[in-house]
Amino acid sequence: MSDSSRIVTLTTDFGDGSSYVAAMKGALLSVDPAARIVDLCHSLPPQNLVAAARFLPEVLPYLPRGSIHVIVVDPGVGSDRALLCVSWNGQILLVPDNGCWTSLEPLAEEPITVIRLSRREFWRQKISPTFHGRDILAPVAGHLSRGVSPGDLGDRTTEWRRLALPKARVKGGDVWGEVVHIDHFGDLITNVSASMIGAAPLVRIGDMTISRIVQTYADAEPGSLVALIGSSGQLEVAVVNGSAAERLGLKIGAPVEVLASP
Amino acid sequence: MSDSSRIVTLTTDFGDGSSYVAAMKGALLSVDPAARIVDLCHSLPPQNLVAAARFLPEVLPYLPRGSIHVIVVDPGVGSDRALLCVSWNGQILLVPDNGCWTSLEPLAEEPITVIRLSRREFWRQKISPTFHGRDILAPVAGHLSRGVSPGDLGDRTTEWRRLALPKARVKGGDVWGEVVHIDHFGDLITNVSASMIGAAPLVRIGDMTISRIVQTYADAEPGSLVALIGSSGQLEVAVVNGSAAERLGLKIGAPVEVLASP
Amino acid sequence: MSDSSRIVTLTTDFGDGSSYVAAMKGALLSVDPAARIVDLCHSLPPQNLVAAARFLPEVLPYLPRGSIHVIVVDPGVGSDRALLCVSWNGQILLVPDNGCWTSLEPLAEEPITVIRLSRREFWRQKISPTFHGRDILAPVAGHLSRGVSPGDLGDRTTEWRRLALPKARVKGGDVWGEVVHIDHFGDLITNVSASMIGAAPLVRIGDMTISRIVQTYADAEPGSLVALIGSSGQLEVAVVNGSAAERLGLKIGAPVEVLASP
Repeated sequence: MSDSSRIVTLTTDFGDGSSYVAAMKGALLSVDPAARIVDLCHSLPPQNLVAAARFLPEVLPYLPRGSIHVIVVDPGVGSDRALLCVSWNGQILLVPDNGCWTSLEPLAEEPITVIRLSRREFWRQKISPTFHGRDILAPVAGHLSRGVSPGDLGDRTTEWRRLALPKARVKGGDVWGEVVHIDHFGDLITNVSASMIGAAPLVRIGDMTISRIVQTYADAEPGSLVALIGSSGQLEVAVVNGSAAERLGLKIGAPVEVLASP
Repeated sequence: MSDSSRIVTLTTDFGDGSSYVAAMKGALLSVDPAARIVDLCHSLPPQNLVAAARFLPEVLPYLPRGSIHVIVVDPGVGSDRALLCVSWNGQILLVPDNGCWTSLEPLAEEPITVIRLSRREFWRQKISPTFHGRDILAPVAGHLSRGVSPGDLGDRTTEWRRLALPKARVKGGDVWGEVVHIDHFGDLITNVSASMIGAAPLVRIGDMTISRIVQTYADAEPGSLVALIGSSGQLEVAVVNGSAAERLGLKIGAPVEVLASP
Repeated sequence: MSDSSRIVTLTTDFGDGSSYVAAMKGALLSVDPAARIVDLCHSLPPQNLVAAARFLPEVLPYLPRGSIHVIVVDPGVGSDRALLCVSWNGQILLVPDNGCWTSLEPLAEEPITVIRLSRREFWRQKISPTFHGRDILAPVAGHLSRGVSPGDLGDRTTEWRRLALPKARVKGGDVWGEVVHIDHFGDLITNVSASMIGAAPLVRIGDMTISRIVQTYADAEPGSLVALIGSSGQLEVAVVNGSAAERLGLKIGAPVEVLASP
């Protein structure tokens, strides 16, 4: 019975309220009505693998062992790209083989094992060439939730695609990075991580230079432009009780420089 | 105990994050705290029965028998329109009698039975004239989830409203239809179904003519405008890794012609 | 075992699909994998305590006793503001001490007890100064769901912050209020409650005067501008099957006058 209440999370680029999400939930529940669905995100930017690769390491490390994750950002649906079942830190990912889980690899604390899905008895009978999330991944998640082992789903592989993600460059104590995400508050999250930054740096972004690195938003007056290490360990630029994205007029991809103190 | 963990899905036009959705969940859970809520969609266009009628057949056939569905698109709330409990393919729908479930009727593989809700002991004590979803449908769903039978909720009826849905016209091998939905990717989903289309058709939409029908998006170069049979069996027009809605500047209701090959 | 399936609701201003929401769900489930997550709202306007204070009394009275509510609208995160565990009508709130739950106080039918969270053994080991929702409130909710008592989480306090909410003024039978919320339909919800209004009032809003108070939307023709007492007992202004916000061009904060009949 404990197996019959596995956590199955969903992460897609289908859009909130999409009938595609709802149909996937149905396809999952019709295999395992006891699966415990947890919506993680349905509003990843369409077909944006980089956004998926940023989202997953912010989230999956917080989920418990035994969780099953269905992740559907799948511009190659219907082509010959494989579908994978990845065992990662005691959790299971069901993903198209397009590199969307690349950034989880360095976080593995145990050997990763990867299965290429091939056993059609765990899929829906009729497979749409444009919706493998509903017709393959969701029912496979249901079977895993009911106790099927990853090894039953296909053959093991040691090859999979990896994504080239925008990485910050460090040179002589200075760092060049970029904005990789903008949250609901308008905070600009960069790919510069805390470990790259020395004491008392200058942060240049847009046409602003920020000399004050704070611990938290409440350390500065409302309306102040501040830089800080956010909850994921990355440098972010924020306006206290306001929107840095709006104030600076910046988008994803905007460059950021962090200069070591002179 | 198995009855105490029935799946209860919610489909509304209240908007994501609406306090109306949250209050409905509360009204359901206060009758059956063990009900297993599954959000299907809360962003149907306001009071748009046609959109509801398009959504439901894309989704409900994938849900398991025994599921209970609360569907609230209800422009007539508080008037004398009835509320219905519909038994459909082993699933139960709770809906206003406004035709929103019209398109599920032809998918019935067993006789449909319909009850008009009248037994107030299964409703909240105080009924707002503008929120029957919270005060009637949600608690009734909770009672069904706890094991009450549809027949206990009121009297059977054989009359209900049906919606006139925009249907494609077929004449001499040619088809005239329209765009009935635009998804998060900007794909234009039409009401032309696969069975209406012959081999090698020409698709005319906006000021474009598409001669290439593909199997899946990956069959054409990124940026290509393509036509294909989507995951619901309907003709759709897409831009590979892009937005057809944006490219063509089209909205719901835009006409589409499918001409038989000469 | 019954304790292991407690309802834990989430209400935040993180935005739908935010990785912050997803990480909080993970942090909760990694403490109690059996917690039954119910999303209430993730699209409260950023850092808007007044909006939170409006949302909660519309919703929480409908939830069953025993529910645990994690509420994160937290502009003061990382400062010395406390985090509270509030026992309210048999339900438990986990909130920053910023007044976001002010409007629930008058609805208490039993004495409220409030604990200041201080026992770090129920928190994540590493606490980000900008994300107490994930690192403190979510794991504490998991421990409560597993049976920990509020009293184990810290010391009782009798002092907490209250929010000054915009209240309608009544004078000689006339009422001056304002629009406090606009819903997905474009209905303008005011802070004028039913009990403040006499028979046959005139409602002045924008440059319109409405003399017709209806029971429900269906009482007037589509397109009509009407006033009515909405499902939360407050005066609202609506356009039947349309958007009053759009028609009148009004926003939150717009004044409304209700004049007693002459």
